[in-house]
Amino acid sequence: MRQMFGLVTKTLTTRIVRSLHTTSQLSTLLVNESDGVRHVVLNNPKKRNVLSLAMIERLREVIVDSPSLRCVVVSSNGPVFSSGHDLKELTTQTSEEYHRKVFDSCGQLMLSLQKLNVPVICQVNGLAAAAGCQLVAASDIVIASDKSKFSTPGASVGLFCSTPAIPLSRSVNLKAAAYMLMTGNTITAYEALKCGLVSRVVSESDINSETQNVVNAILCKSKSVIALGKHFFYSQINQNLETAYCNGSQVMVTNLGLRDAQEGIEAFIGKRTPLWSHSTDRYK
Amino acid sequence: MRQMFGLVTKTLTTRIVRSLHTTSQLSTLLVNESDGVRHVVLNNPKKRNVLSLAMIERLREVIVDSPSLRCVVVSSNGPVFSSGHDLKELTTQTSEEYHRKVFDSCGQLMLSLQKLNVPVICQVNGLAAAAGCQLVAASDIVIASDKSKFSTPGASVGLFCSTPAIPLSRSVNLKAAAYMLMTGNTITAYEALKCGLVSRVVSESDINSETQNVVNAILCKSKSVIALGKHFFYSQINQNLETAYCNGSQVMVTNLGLRDAQEGIEAFIGKRTPLWSHSTDRYK
Amino acid sequence: MRQMFGLVTKTLTTRIVRSLHTTSQLSTLLVNESDGVRHVVLNNPKKRNVLSLAMIERLREVIVDSPSLRCVVVSSNGPVFSSGHDLKELTTQTSEEYHRKVFDSCGQLMLSLQKLNVPVICQVNGLAAAAGCQLVAASDIVIASDKSKFSTPGASVGLFCSTPAIPLSRSVNLKAAAYMLMTGNTITAYEALKCGLVSRVVSESDINSETQNVVNAILCKSKSVIALGKHFFYSQINQNLETAYCNGSQVMVTNLGLRDAQEGIEAFIGKRTPLWSHSTDRYK
Repeated sequence: MRQMFGLVTKTLTTRIVRSLHTTSQLSTLLVNESDGVRHVVLNNPKKRNVLSLAMIERLREVIVDSPSLRCVVVSSNGPVFSSGHDLKELTTQTSEEYHRKVFDSCGQLMLSLQKLNVPVICQVNGLAAAAGCQLVAASDIVIASDKSKFSTPGASVGLFCSTPAIPLSRSVNLKAAAYMLMTGNTITAYEALKCGLVSRVVSESDINSETQNVVNAILCKSKSVIALGKHFFYSQINQNLETAYCNGSQVMVTNLGLRDAQEGIEAFIGKRTPLWSHSTDRYK
Repeated sequence: MRQMFGLVTKTLTTRIVRSLHTTSQLSTLLVNESDGVRHVVLNNPKKRNVLSLAMIERLREVIVDSPSLRCVVVSSNGPVFSSGHDLKELTTQTSEEYHRKVFDSCGQLMLSLQKLNVPVICQVNGLAAAAGCQLVAASDIVIASDKSKFSTPGASVGLFCSTPAIPLSRSVNLKAAAYMLMTGNTITAYEALKCGLVSRVVSESDINSETQNVVNAILCKSKSVIALGKHFFYSQINQNLETAYCNGSQVMVTNLGLRDAQEGIEAFIGKRTPLWSHSTDRYK
Repeated sequence: MRQMFGLVTKTLTTRIVRSLHTTSQLSTLLVNESDGVRHVVLNNPKKRNVLSLAMIERLREVIVDSPSLRCVVVSSNGPVFSSGHDLKELTTQTSEEYHRKVFDSCGQLMLSLQKLNVPVICQVNGLAAAAGCQLVAASDIVIASDKSKFSTPGASVGLFCSTPAIPLSRSVNLKAAAYMLMTGNTITAYEALKCGLVSRVVSESDINSETQNVVNAILCKSKSVIALGKHFFYSQINQNLETAYCNGSQVMVTNLGLRDAQEGIEAFIGKRTPLWSHSTDRYK
């Protein structure tokens, strides 16, 4: 269990904080952290918030845990949430080694969203295409405005959205996924809600407050409890039912041994607000 | 195949029947069986139909097969379908051994719903929370009134709904499941229908007749045929497609060898009502 | 990769073309191919487009790749898309060997839809029942008219829809699948859309143009790119996430090495229409 909650080293934390200090409106990635919420904003609207290798690596640097982190919110500036990979990086001007590096790094970014101890909320207000749609599908919770759109049109330029298909096919039903991948057609926010790609759809004017509702719901819980639950949630999906229940019983017992679990139950019974340690300290 | 349809021993059946006889309005679990339909009613509304260890063990005793059983309907009295585990049983007042016993027994209950030879219909008319929501998600078919609500808010009291996540994540899409588990927020009956948690939503006044429609559809079929199909349905979900089709062919051939299959086809061709044996007797 | 795109031999192609020439309104299966689109039409409305063994084997003959093939559209004439297996073939008048042959052949047909290099679009305008519903669920993309209906009522005649359950449970959520399989009740086109069985629902008058939109979207892409993506899409579904991303990176690199990928990217950057080879030729 200890390993599960392994937090980032001081060096890494320092690096993030330093990066926060150097953030400015000129940066293509804005990172702003307060009260445990790290806002990561794609800020390259002129280039449709393209996921260049540099941007992918920058995202990997900032989507890491830190002792005070409680959740990450990924959003973007401009009408396009993200158009996906930079096709100019994927020509014969670069090498096969370079292409591999782009996809390996992008895959690691997507995996890191699930592995992160805290929830990743994706706030979409515009078009999320190809690897941009992959970033949406790979997040834990997705809040979309009703003007958002989603597509995986890679095949139209000769590059099938095979890696976006990975989180897409785990989020939406197969008939919707095949339709998106094979036609490249765009679906609306409400269609995305119907098929499972997003958690909630609200009007553009309500999107910040809806995201804040989700953030607040997370902030009033214990970090260590959410981390424990998030890791089990994703680990059990492909297990057979008997194995999942067997492991699930153990996770519940481990959870109850946390100081924060006993604090939460005591507070509930005593009708008071719990005081979380957010730590993995065990009871007694 | 014989093993698949293994029916409960006479001793067990006698125990259930005896328990039926002692059922009264004072009991926290009402069990009423007629014409092959066993109605199991959570009847502890003052305690929000809490799934205490005693209640879990009582449910495990009554959700078992018997020769005359054709389907089980689980419902509840009061505004809360079930609030889930009894948190008072999960404090440091009890031991880790006790906690483990609670979750192991609850897991066995949930598994037994899938393993049961007959369909389990869950009729929800109120709030189903935490392990109460787990009971819903673990049933075969769910009929909900439009005033029903669903939530997995365990993390709010320091105990993430890890075990409820098991059937939840197998019923609803991942973005909806993560939203419910990480925020603890409640979703409406229609949201539950959209994301796959329930089979049908009707008005409160229609819920009994809708459940009766489902019951009638089951009663006019052969018990052994439904048992065969239900077991294959759940067994093939995680198999690769080739394996599933290979096993599926064998199941269809086995099904056709049942006396009830040949009776059903003969009746269909002869435009008459089939007379089922409900047994696993084979043709000739 | 070469193997993945293995095309049918000349002999097979000739056989299909010959079969096209013999097609007439008197045939129970119409096959018409032009501009890379093979229209396969179930044309036995008096017998509710029953999937007899002969029809299954005929479908297996025509749903095969050919050098010029770009997509397959399966539709039907008459008010019933297909009523499923011919029950008269499944009585004791035929042997267990014959029954096994029917289901094995049907399973191979369904598997072939996924294995085919090109997308299979199912256009439904009527009732798709039992193995007819299986054919729908096993297709890549499903366009349904709003008067379409879907059911898996096999248990009503003593033969549970176990094999239809295979693609059904991989397309729709479990609560909807269990409801359909255990009650045999019919769901509407919009219910089918909600639970994931179909990709799009349109009015009957719009169904041909909606299918044509999907066909056009496929025709303007490279065959080899869609084949590569389709095969990866289905292969990665049951893999764990790390394995899927590892394989996905390799597939993206392989895709970029195709001549058609570099043509597509060059055309996109140069703002011109790509000229596809549709071949698996690699760049340089």
